[in-house]
Amino acid sequence: MTALPAEELAPGALLLSEIREQPAALERLLEHSDEYSAVAAVARDRGLSLVRMVGHGSSDNAASYGVYAFGLLPRWTAVRDSISLSVYYGAEIDLRGSCIVALSQSGETPDVLAYVERARLRGALTIAITNDPQSALGEAAELVLPLAAGPEHSIAATKTYTAQVAALALLAGHAAGQGAMIGEGIRAVAAQLDDAMPGLERRLAEVAVAFAFVGRMFVIGRGPEFATAREISLKLLETCRVAAEPLTATDLMHGPLAALDGLFPVWTIGSDDESLPAVRDAAARALAAGATLVASGPAAREIAGAAFSVPVPTPAVTLLSPLLSVVPGQLLAWALAQAKGLDPDRPNGLSKITHAL
Amino acid sequence: MTALPAEELAPGALLLSEIREQPAALERLLEHSDEYSAVAAVARDRGLSLVRMVGHGSSDNAASYGVYAFGLLPRWTAVRDSISLSVYYGAEIDLRGSCIVALSQSGETPDVLAYVERARLRGALTIAITNDPQSALGEAAELVLPLAAGPEHSIAATKTYTAQVAALALLAGHAAGQGAMIGEGIRAVAAQLDDAMPGLERRLAEVAVAFAFVGRMFVIGRGPEFATAREISLKLLETCRVAAEPLTATDLMHGPLAALDGLFPVWTIGSDDESLPAVRDAAARALAAGATLVASGPAAREIAGAAFSVPVPTPAVTLLSPLLSVVPGQLLAWALAQAKGLDPDRPNGLSKITHAL
Repeated sequence: MTALPAEELAPGALLLSEIREQPAALERLLEHSDEYSAVAAVARDRGLSLVRMVGHGSSDNAASYGVYAFGLLPRWTAVRDSISLSVYYGAEIDLRGSCIVALSQSGETPDVLAYVERARLRGALTIAITNDPQSALGEAAELVLPLAAGPEHSIAATKTYTAQVAALALLAGHAAGQGAMIGEGIRAVAAQLDDAMPGLERRLAEVAVAFAFVGRMFVIGRGPEFATAREISLKLLETCRVAAEPLTATDLMHGPLAALDGLFPVWTIGSDDESLPAVRDAAARALAAGATLVASGPAAREIAGAAFSVPVPTPAVTLLSPLLSVVPGQLLAWALAQAKGLDPDRPNGLSKITHAL
Repeated sequence: MTALPAEELAPGALLLSEIREQPAALERLLEHSDEYSAVAAVARDRGLSLVRMVGHGSSDNAASYGVYAFGLLPRWTAVRDSISLSVYYGAEIDLRGSCIVALSQSGETPDVLAYVERARLRGALTIAITNDPQSALGEAAELVLPLAAGPEHSIAATKTYTAQVAALALLAGHAAGQGAMIGEGIRAVAAQLDDAMPGLERRLAEVAVAFAFVGRMFVIGRGPEFATAREISLKLLETCRVAAEPLTATDLMHGPLAALDGLFPVWTIGSDDESLPAVRDAAARALAAGATLVASGPAAREIAGAAFSVPVPTPAVTLLSPLLSVVPGQLLAWALAQAKGLDPDRPNGLSKITHAL
């Protein structure tokens, strides 16, 4: 596949084609399951117990999912580590016993690369998960795992985000001796997503019309779905100029609730797990404050009072629901950008690889 | 001091009195420096290397500061741990070698309490930092440290937030054998803040007039000042109904930059440390996108093109600058709420202790 110049395509055509490609990208990732298994075995054999994930933007959002994937499958502590603490402030932290998981679509993010180079010198096990194993990051890390999502041309990441989420689930699954179960779960999700995609596209195009004048929004998720809330917010920010802020259900209660009124919609993500009561409660409080509610996720129907309900299929493995839940948000970003007269393939001031300090 | 019913006071009177009380609260904390030293010695003697901080709202914002205080002083890894992973999802994570630092003003936050009870059973060293050592949290933790901020009546936390930041600096300082230096630094900051307060109050009352119609804002900080960005955003959300979102300078470049235009002000926090180049660069990019810039922090004057500049004094210990940098944001929340006809002492739907799931 060669690069398609965005200016020859309809607005949002790149973004939509990559949203649609996600089931195929997940299938391609699964072809590398043995490599994920081998890397998990190295981490297990070295007795590592602390996973330090690093990445920016969508990669950092995927890392929010990794906290739960590693915590619930191999019962490892996984954290989104501070890049600035070691790279810019030069803190000399003891990294023995740590496993670094660096997430970068391009493999060229400068401070992620610098972090990995330092961590490797300090004796940490360094693993890169990237769409380009030949990249600088792929070269710098001790072990490299492919995302295999295929070239991503849209500036707003979609298929590489879901591939990162699936990659973290697969690595955590293998670390827990449950790689085959997680792999089958991802395969089933890919099929469900492929079936659901046409209906979701139509539904989100309708929802977008109602949101054309929205300037701000909260997106509420909890547990593994907090990653989804972060990623949906980022899509709306970068493609639709909506000041969308991700919050856990608990965060909402500790202050931001007071900001709500009828002009401030709240998008809630309901999954069939231990987080659902808190998300339902947050939705009820937002509704009482006059907010317009959107409910999405596999348990969207469990959220009372939603003006717009956008359920997705229920996955066989509950922990994999973020692979499905994020898609309505990606499609809203695509549809809402056009409803607002913006081209989601050409966000203001952004480029595909961020070289900023 | 007895509780003052908010309805008998002018709007915002409680909030302002507690903002003004911060230098005195910091002095009171320092009276307990020996207790902080003793607790740090316990953590050091047990050879603990991983600090897991838990808290919600302002307490969680203070924990963002703790990542840098522990990383830069004793060179320990400190993380904002997931409460939901252990309390709601029941993940059985190995906590040997971990030191828990639980932050709660009231000491009554239910899931923070549940987290500490479980962690103590699993053999972690549990430390509570609370304004009420007699609280349930104070009873549940193995060791308890007082904030000594005095009763907080305003729903929006101010003096307990700065006391938490100072408490984390003091604990980290003692852990690194530099407790006396940090203690002297906090004492000097208290004096600087006391001197600067009247001028800051006047300045922020002026700035607030210009922001009366603002509905959304980004607040940019980096390194230790990311905690400040989070706390300023929370104050504006809970008292002024401004959709304020905290971002690191790097976060801004990875997507949200595209949302900016002339109706979307950006508040930048400049501190004289390794984070300043990235914050200056982010400010320049925001300005180029048409955003109105506010510059605050000790290095506010280093940020070019700010429509409003609100410098604070430069602390002797750079790591303590967040104790000063947050105050203009607290005062903007107080002044802007009134400019918008809101009472910051009675935010919509909030109460002082959050009992939500």
